[in-house]
Amino acid sequence: MTRRILGVDPGLNITGYGVLQSDGHDVRLLEAGVVTSHARTLAGRINDIYTGIQDVLAQYKPEALALEELYSHYKRPMTAVLMGHVRGAICLAAAQSGIPVVPYAATKIKRTLTGNGRATKEQMQRAITVTFHLKSVPNPPDVADAAAIALCHYYHSR
Amino acid sequence: MTRRILGVDPGLNITGYGVLQSDGHDVRLLEAGVVTSHARTLAGRINDIYTGIQDVLAQYKPEALALEELYSHYKRPMTAVLMGHVRGAICLAAAQSGIPVVPYAATKIKRTLTGNGRATKEQMQRAITVTFHLKSVPNPPDVADAAAIALCHYYHSR
Repeated sequence: MTRRILGVDPGLNITGYGVLQSDGHDVRLLEAGVVTSHARTLAGRINDIYTGIQDVLAQYKPEALALEELYSHYKRPMTAVLMGHVRGAICLAAAQSGIPVVPYAATKIKRTLTGNGRATKEQMQRAITVTFHLKSVPNPPDVADAAAIALCHYYHSR
Repeated sequence: MTRRILGVDPGLNITGYGVLQSDGHDVRLLEAGVVTSHARTLAGRINDIYTGIQDVLAQYKPEALALEELYSHYKRPMTAVLMGHVRGAICLAAAQSGIPVVPYAATKIKRTLTGNGRATKEQMQRAITVTFHLKSVPNPPDVADAAAIALCHYYHSR
């Protein structure tokens, strides 16, 4: 059975996404990219990112949308609250498409992909590059992060 | 000219709103209430609140949606980030309806309504009750907060 999982790394400037596809034996990165916005208002930016993720959901029809779980100690609360605006709009898009949102703690994503819950960004990027047989590290890093979240969900839902 | 302003106090459990109407001479609280959700998932709750605010926008067609401005030092970052999810969905609903979102700092709302940027909750509730000729304080407090935000925008946009 073919399965598709969407991983999203929400951000107000850049929201990364990765669509992973598996036929039960192998897993590959079907599509990945970023949604950005140049709108001048917060509401306009949220709308652009929401629309972009809606398009990805409509085109690839994933069975689940995986996200990084929230945590309680953000170093920069303002940035976190703005990320929350985008994350809320992404959850909304998923709910409207009837797709479950599955959160994973950052440490769980790292441990699942590298065996180490405190893996570095480089170790995570290498795991993604190797697993998906990529020629280079996905760029910008938001894409690799989104792919990592999707892959974590894949391993935990087989 | 008749003007309508929507004030919203976003929260994941209770989102308060107040629609203020003015004919240029007088200002009254046309409608106020709360949107709640009993959905079991975060995405479901956001969807319910988004839909509720969409309904208010469609029914009352306000010229602006006023919100409390974000600030940089949240005492409870996790709660703030969850509020951000709801605030993002509300901004989205406004953008989709072509209604501008206007943020006001909490101190500005207080100063505008009471002359004191550090007014207590009771002083704010009294200002709302007196201004709108209400028989009692709006309840729950989220309603009074939403009405206060709308009233602040009214005074600053006359």
